[in-house]
Amino acid sequence: MSAYDELMAFQRDTHALAEVTGRLGWDQETVMPRGAAEQRAEEMGVLSAMLHDRRTDPRVGDWLAAAEPADDVQAAQLREIRRGFDKARKVPGKLASEIARVTSTAQGVWAEARAADDPKPFLPILDRVVALKRDEAQALAEGGDPYDALLDDYEPGATAATLSAMFDALRPRLVALRDAAMDSDVQPAALTGRFDPEAQFHLSRELAGAFGYDFTRGRIDRAVHPFSSGSGDDVRITTRTVETDPFNCLYSTIHEVGHATYEQNIDRAYLMTPLGGGVSMGVHESQSRIYENQLGRSRPFTGWLHGRMAEVFGDPGLDADAFYGAVNRLHRGFIRTEADEVQYNLHVLLRFDLERALIAGDLAVGDLEGAWNDRFAADFGYPIDRPSNGFLQDVHWSVGLFGYFATYTLGNVYAGCLNAAMRAAVPDLDDHLAQGDTAPATTWLRENVQRHGGLYAPRELITRACGTAPSEAPLLDYLETKFGALYAL
Amino acid sequence: MSAYDELMAFQRDTHALAEVTGRLGWDQETVMPRGAAEQRAEEMGVLSAMLHDRRTDPRVGDWLAAAEPADDVQAAQLREIRRGFDKARKVPGKLASEIARVTSTAQGVWAEARAADDPKPFLPILDRVVALKRDEAQALAEGGDPYDALLDDYEPGATAATLSAMFDALRPRLVALRDAAMDSDVQPAALTGRFDPEAQFHLSRELAGAFGYDFTRGRIDRAVHPFSSGSGDDVRITTRTVETDPFNCLYSTIHEVGHATYEQNIDRAYLMTPLGGGVSMGVHESQSRIYENQLGRSRPFTGWLHGRMAEVFGDPGLDADAFYGAVNRLHRGFIRTEADEVQYNLHVLLRFDLERALIAGDLAVGDLEGAWNDRFAADFGYPIDRPSNGFLQDVHWSVGLFGYFATYTLGNVYAGCLNAAMRAAVPDLDDHLAQGDTAPATTWLRENVQRHGGLYAPRELITRACGTAPSEAPLLDYLETKFGALYAL
Repeated sequence: MSAYDELMAFQRDTHALAEVTGRLGWDQETVMPRGAAEQRAEEMGVLSAMLHDRRTDPRVGDWLAAAEPADDVQAAQLREIRRGFDKARKVPGKLASEIARVTSTAQGVWAEARAADDPKPFLPILDRVVALKRDEAQALAEGGDPYDALLDDYEPGATAATLSAMFDALRPRLVALRDAAMDSDVQPAALTGRFDPEAQFHLSRELAGAFGYDFTRGRIDRAVHPFSSGSGDDVRITTRTVETDPFNCLYSTIHEVGHATYEQNIDRAYLMTPLGGGVSMGVHESQSRIYENQLGRSRPFTGWLHGRMAEVFGDPGLDADAFYGAVNRLHRGFIRTEADEVQYNLHVLLRFDLERALIAGDLAVGDLEGAWNDRFAADFGYPIDRPSNGFLQDVHWSVGLFGYFATYTLGNVYAGCLNAAMRAAVPDLDDHLAQGDTAPATTWLRENVQRHGGLYAPRELITRACGTAPSEAPLLDYLETKFGALYAL
Repeated sequence: MSAYDELMAFQRDTHALAEVTGRLGWDQETVMPRGAAEQRAEEMGVLSAMLHDRRTDPRVGDWLAAAEPADDVQAAQLREIRRGFDKARKVPGKLASEIARVTSTAQGVWAEARAADDPKPFLPILDRVVALKRDEAQALAEGGDPYDALLDDYEPGATAATLSAMFDALRPRLVALRDAAMDSDVQPAALTGRFDPEAQFHLSRELAGAFGYDFTRGRIDRAVHPFSSGSGDDVRITTRTVETDPFNCLYSTIHEVGHATYEQNIDRAYLMTPLGGGVSMGVHESQSRIYENQLGRSRPFTGWLHGRMAEVFGDPGLDADAFYGAVNRLHRGFIRTEADEVQYNLHVLLRFDLERALIAGDLAVGDLEGAWNDRFAADFGYPIDRPSNGFLQDVHWSVGLFGYFATYTLGNVYAGCLNAAMRAAVPDLDDHLAQGDTAPATTWLRENVQRHGGLYAPRELITRACGTAPSEAPLLDYLETKFGALYAL
């Protein structure tokens, strides 16, 4: 066997082990008996250690040095393997396992602190997590910018500087749009009533199918938090139902279907290889958001959904235009995951700035709550009422996800670019959406984005798909047009 | 760290990896999307290879040589580790992976052959499985008896000679009892009607709880075949529902609860160690069968169940005595898993004799169907009507399980011994069972059998629990008394 073939065979087994770990994560969130938590933590620890051993195995370095790619695909495979190997080797094993251990505990402490609305017990361990992530960032950066090194884990090639420039351009126009809409005399009404959870779940499965989710290679279950997990031929999603808010279930399902079909639609030649997954968190989020928002919350698609909901739940008491308003209406709120399309990114930008300050050492964990509350009041115009509505709302920092939040907004920006290109390429898209037919859209996304897996770097992928480099302009134009019309601005 | 501690730490990780493999097996039979089969096979292959590497790791041999046990428990741990290590090392890696590969394919071929009722496509690969298992048996036996070497995998210490003596004593009395019952003027009626599958499933959960199953450390799902999987704090079972036969669901659940509570009730000090599982397949089956038969199919317990079923499904059309008859009635049939308590062991004895002949080389795979059909007609008095009712009915041989069938009957024999001892120790057991209260029985079994895990060898465990060495006599006495009364013999 050539060095390339030996390396790929080794990687394939590593990939299989990683898939197994992911599957156990799914199990834990959906079906695991609660008394199994401690035993499962031990099993996960063993798998993590084995994965770390494989990812830092010196033979990988030898194979990488000797391997000669025969074509662009092989070159991309080697690029991805080298990226992972270099990263894994830079972080001392002791630090990696300390981070795994501390964040595993911190997540439980965070959950209790949030439930009790009391940050005090959480602050010491969050302080420890930040210190460990700073150490990791410095090890990864090797003299470069530590925060950029963390970003690179989720969005290869992204830097705080380029993201900041993009986010600085987004913020004023989002704030202006939000303020104008909130001040408008036109205010869409909310949907009210009770909606049978079983029927919601059933309809969400129908929507998943309508957006191209392949149930023979996946399944939908209920869980506390909606998520997508797995790759290749076993990509599962979860959803949840709230009796008074069917949009929660329906749109979080469409969102997760965006993530899941990205994984399902990758070229089968890349299955079980380093190219066989979504290329970055930002590109992943672009798929979930374009499915959810630019397609799912469009006037034509909500017109079709309005009809289906009337069939399933009876007269919603709103006509199709008012239903579209109810789906898209702006509303006050503290929680990122419940935010509307306009304000969502303001939540992300707040977190991006605060976590950069934490990693830079410019903000102490003890001052985090105050900094959060000040910034929220400045950006949203009303004060945080309690910590669980403020800096305790997200799990991310407790589990060490620094550098992750930015990819949510980057995903929205990518979705804006892709939406503009897709609509230029498929002029009659709205006619199809009005029939509940997403195929022309999902086919365009599969062909131009999803099938490539990790072949192209994120910016290159979006640039190839759109014909221009990513920019925040299309997203802003789309939002201003959509909400300008809805609020008669 | 001492050699003992190092060895135990290594074993703990191996155990965790084995648990993970078992959990994926559960996933595969219950929730896995059907399109994921190929990917899952690859993941399982990687885990199997890693497990084999760990089980044959030369360091285990070094630690075993250096370790000094501080007490009986440590001595038992070392005994179990040595047993596994010696076995794993005797089988060449190439043979082990060839067996894994061929049996994985053979299972699918068998399933198709059974569904099509056509043995032809299955015979060549079964021939290959038998040849491989003969090679494995010879490698394990190192000059001793090959079939005994296979038996030892499932029932340490058992030999074909001692089992044969026991089975030879069973057979004539079982046949005589069956013939007398079938010829009797008294014939209990069967339960008829339709029973809502959801209500069956719900009632089976209630029965699981009544038999002490801990739902905080387990769960019940539906699957094609009932099974129990996992150990320690995550022991899951499956059941199935047949609308016209509620006993199928209820009694297979009680059976699996016997397996599962055995695992759940092992001393927590043994968790994640070689002593932390049931000691043998025979002892495991003794727990499932005593729960199902000596307890669950007893007159007092069925009296309670009769009342519960009337509450759940309405009047069954049978009084409590007739209901007891319906639960226990003997009936003609081809299928082992559907056999009554008297005839079940005759099915096992047939397989035991045929598979010994296959492994000894005295019976060719091409002659297996004829040999099966001749023996069945001799033992049961009517001919096999088609292969799926004959030698194609069980999955075992296709997946290489030679030496396993005998443990079913051995489990019944152990259950007979334990039942006699338990009834002597708990004189008012029937009063409790009549109230649906199994606690005195399950407590006795937990204390005398289950909590010990792998501490004592199987025969020693049963001898300690019963005060006498295992024998087939108590089982035969129990069956003759029970069915003698039921059939007025």
